Order: sequence, then structure tokens, then C-alpha cells
Amino acid sequence: MKLKYMTLQNIATLNDIERAYQLIQSYVHKTPVLKSELINKLLGCSVQFKCENFQKVGAFKYRGATHAILRLSDAEKSNGVTTHSSGNHAGALAKAASLQGIDAYIVMPKNAPKVKVEAVKSYGGIITFCEPTLEARETTLKKVQEETGATFIHPYDNFNVICGQGTACLELYDQVAEPDYVFAPVGGGGLLSGTSIVAKSIWQNTKVIAGEPKNADDAYQSFNTHELVPAVHPNSIADGLLTSLSDLTFGIIQKYVDEIITVSEEEIIEAMKLVYQYLKIVIEPSSAVPFAAVIKNKARFQNKSIVIIVSGGNVDLAQLPF
Amino acid sequence: MKLKYMTLQNIATLNDIERAYQLIQSYVHKTPVLKSELINKLLGCSVQFKCENFQKVGAFKYRGATHAILRLSDAEKSNGVTTHSSGNHAGALAKAASLQGIDAYIVMPKNAPKVKVEAVKSYGGIITFCEPTLEARETTLKKVQEETGATFIHPYDNFNVICGQGTACLELYDQVAEPDYVFAPVGGGGLLSGTSIVAKSIWQNTKVIAGEPKNADDAYQSFNTHELVPAVHPNSIADGLLTSLSDLTFGIIQKYVDEIITVSEEEIIEAMKLVYQYLKIVIEPSSAVPFAAVIKNKARFQNKSIVIIVSGGNVDLAQLPF
Repeated sequence: MKLKYMTLQNIATLNDIERAYQLIQSYVHKTPVLKSELINKLLGCSVQFKCENFQKVGAFKYRGATHAILRLSDAEKSNGVTTHSSGNHAGALAKAASLQGIDAYIVMPKNAPKVKVEAVKSYGGIITFCEPTLEARETTLKKVQEETGATFIHPYDNFNVICGQGTACLELYDQVAEPDYVFAPVGGGGLLSGTSIVAKSIWQNTKVIAGEPKNADDAYQSFNTHELVPAVHPNSIADGLLTSLSDLTFGIIQKYVDEIITVSEEEIIEAMKLVYQYLKIVIEPSSAVPFAAVIKNKARFQNKSIVIIVSGGNVDLAQLPF
Repeated sequence: MKLKYMTLQNIATLNDIERAYQLIQSYVHKTPVLKSELINKLLGCSVQFKCENFQKVGAFKYRGATHAILRLSDAEKSNGVTTHSSGNHAGALAKAASLQGIDAYIVMPKNAPKVKVEAVKSYGGIITFCEPTLEARETTLKKVQEETGATFIHPYDNFNVICGQGTACLELYDQVAEPDYVFAPVGGGGLLSGTSIVAKSIWQNTKVIAGEPKNADDAYQSFNTHELVPAVHPNSIADGLLTSLSDLTFGIIQKYVDEIITVSEEEIIEAMKLVYQYLKIVIEPSSAVPFAAVIKNKARFQNKSIVIIVSGGNVDLAQLPF
């Protein structure tokens, strides 16, 4: 119980997220909400997609990274920021830092996809490569911190990052009517945390459901056993959802999320394909996970109104699964 | 000269296209205009994309088909409409007809892609299959017309269809500032005709440029020799641009279009890839053709403002060229 008590102290409120939005509003895109008549006809419900794939750097991560950077003191800013990531958070932090004229030191495993490395470089990130193990990443990060004095911006175990990610759902307030359900993917839980805090605050009866790959179901297990279970050998095409929850995100998810639904790799690919085909937008596999959870439970969601947070659109086009 | 005189009689005006828009406005999507900072940085100019891939049935064709149908008399409507097409016009006509409660008889070559056949069926089109030759298509169409009394709605050699296609550019009036250039693809010339009439009427100095596949360059040849040249064995991944101009569209294009630029298959694929990667939208190869013409002439368009009409997003995902 001590853990839960501690984390609850850190739970952001709607007010925190509104203030985050005031701060980052001029730096982020207000992303559009799209729908497809054919998808609605196919599923017998109303699905609206909040398109964070159109966000800067192609993912919601830009919101949290921007917010965390804007909250730094001038002294902290002068030493720059650092993180270890081979995914969207690395690019987001590098670009957000560059826009504020501060340095971003990114620790990346040396087997990181070339396209991700190029993206971080193009945003002006200063890359240090390390061996592709968590231990090497953490050791290298510590070394970079010691050498530079840079502030570590964790991709999700960070109050300000979570507040930033919540602003996507906040924008929905004047974009859609109160939905029956809001769906988001869950990896480390930053987006889900921010989303659930906002959804439960701005709407009366909306339920928040997360989609998670069956092959990386640590959040599902943690949520249902009420004990933080780390991801063990996660292996999914949804490469943004392989991380484990943190104490902070787990606390928020336990409090505000109603349910986590897991889906198979085939279900993720099928959902991704439907989005490309009918919605005509490019999404990454992680973004298809919550939609796959809706499709899988089609009968249950008949005539319901659903909003899905589409997390990002950074996909290697040579590796599309169809 | 007689030909040119005749066709000029039929040239639609801005006024005709404004009236078309009043008629179809409640049936079509006002499609968004998107841009990418990275694309602009890469090319050194400002490119805005008018996204008709988000139009109903996934293509601008829905505008023209809807308008042509709404212009029919009640007597004509009661006998339905017909066309021969294996592409977007078939689906557009079927859906637009179904919405007005009238029959659409679609003649399709029996080797038409299954996905296109399914689309027409899903929109309620009544399909007659024929041999895959132009002669068979025309003979079969004539037979269908005789049997049903349906009105033939040509995909582009039709005044009302051209007026409908022009409404996409009309929407740009309050979506973008006057651009230096408007680009559109050219196949049969319906979209290019409507676009050029509108662009030259609502803006003072905007130039209209068409993109065309080198492997289907009949419009390029016609435009530059001032004589209508039919497409001979066109063979391009841009499957929406294989048709020849008609007298009607050729007359309009000669009058209003400033230039036609041809591009290779590799250039089309490269442009398509950039759109998927940076703009995060799904487009069909034909839509990448005008963008390929911009990329190819990057130096010439430095610091210019460009709007590209993205014609559609109906692509066989299993056949993506990357």
C-alpha cells in the first residue's frame, strides 16, 4: 500500500494538464479527428480517430517532450536534456530541444534502425551509441549526464511528460461530443495516463479502455493482478508498446482506466490495414492496437460512440505487414 | 480550327462551377489541406496538399459523379445511370446514384481488380462484365443503355462532371492564400479542366501545371503539338492516368493550363513514398505524379508556394511499390 500512496501524490490533475496545454499550445499541432463511414458501417458503431500521427515528429510524444523541456529552469536548460530511446521519444526530445535552442543528448542502441537514427540527427540530436542492452543504455546515460549535466527526461515516468501527453485528449473537448469510450494504446503508460485523467475529468460517463498486444501484456497483467509486472521478452509488431509501466503510470492507470484488452499480432495487422484502406492515413502498428481491440469486440460496442487516440505514424514503409 | 471553336462553346465558367458547388456541397466532404514542415525544408518551397483522398469513395471523382446525377431530370433519374470504368469513377457513380435512390449500371472488364469490383458492389452498383477491350466496353454499354434507358455519364467528357471536379479547387479559395502554382494530375483531363478554370478565375497570377507519367504522355504531346493525340499503349503505375483527353477537356486545357511536366515511374514512386513518410497519408500512385513533377524541378520552384490537388487514395495495399 505504501507504493500506491506514494504514487498517488504524483497524480496529475486536469488543472495540471490544462496548464501544460497553455504552455505548449503554440508549439504543437491541434491534430484533426477523422472518421470513415465505411468503418462505422462495418462495425455498427461510431469510431472517431484523434490523429496524433499528424503531430510534429509524427507522434504524440512531441507533446510530452515539449512540455518537460519548457518546465526546466534556465540553469537546467543551459545544460541540455538527455534520454535513452530508439523510438519516437528520442526524435521528439531532439526536435523540442532544438526549437528551444538547447542541446539534446540521445543515447541509442547501436542496432537502432537507421531511419530512427537519421530522424534524431535531422532534428539536431547529439547521439551516443551503446550496446543494445538496458544496462548499457542506463550506464551510458549516466555517463552522459555526468559529463554534460543534462537533465534526464524519461519517456513516461515523468510528471510533466504525462501532463503533455494528456493534452491530446484535452483537445478532444471541443472536437467531439462526449463519447461512450475512449481507447488508447498502452506501452509505458504515459499516453494512457494523461488520456485517462483528462477523459474522466471532462466527461461524465466515458469509459477509458486501453489496447495492448497479447505478446507484450505486462500492463494487462499488472492491471488485473494489482501488482506491477514488468514486460518479459515482449515481442510484437507494435514496437512502441514493448516497455513496462512505471510506478507513476501504474498508479494513474489503476485509478482511472476501466479495462485493458489484449489483441493478437494478426488482429493488429488487420486493424492497421483497415485504417490504411478506409481512413487513408499512415499509422504505425502501435496505433492500430486499440482499434484492433474495438474490432475484436464488435458485438459489445454496437451503436456506441468511440474515440481512439492514434498515437503515431512513424513506420518503416519497406516493412509494412501487408 | 472548327474543333477548337466547337469545344470552346462548352467551356464551363467559374459561375457554372460555383453553381455546381451549391448543388453538391451537402453531399461531398470539404477536404482538408495538409502540409509537412519536413517536405518544405527538403524542397525549399511551400507545398500544400488538397486531400481528395479523404473525399467520399476516396477520390475527387465523387464530386463530378454527384453533380452529373443531380443535374438529371426526374425522367432521366427514373431510368438510372450507366458508365464503363474499372476505376474510381465506377465507384463514385455507384455511390452517388445509390444516395439519390437511382440505379447505376456499371460495365466493367472481367479482369477488373477484385477490390474495385467489390467496391462498386458495396455501393450498390449493378455490374455487367465484358471482355477487356475498349470495343467490348462500348458495345456492352450501348446494350445496357438500350435495355435500361439509363443515361451515360462519361468519366470526364461531360460538362457537368467537369464542373463537379472543379469544386475541389473552389474550396481552396478560403483554405489557402493565392499560390504561385497549382498542380494537378492529368489523365482524361476532367480534374485538370475544372481545376484550371477555377484557378485562373479566382487568382490573379497563379500558374496551372499538370503532372503526367512519361509512359502515358498523350496530354503532354497533345498540349505541345496542339493536336489531340490519343494514348497509345500507356503503361504506368499511375493507373488513373492511362486515359486520353477528349475534345472537351483538350479545349479547356489548351486555354487555361500553362504547362505539362512528365515524370518517370521511379520519380512517381519516390514522390509517393515521401508523401506516405512525411505527410502520413495514403495516396494512390496517380496522386503522386504532380508532386513528382515538383520534386524533379526543385531548383525551379525554390521559395515558391505550390498547391497540389491529391486526386485519390484507392490503392491495393498488397501492391505498394515500396
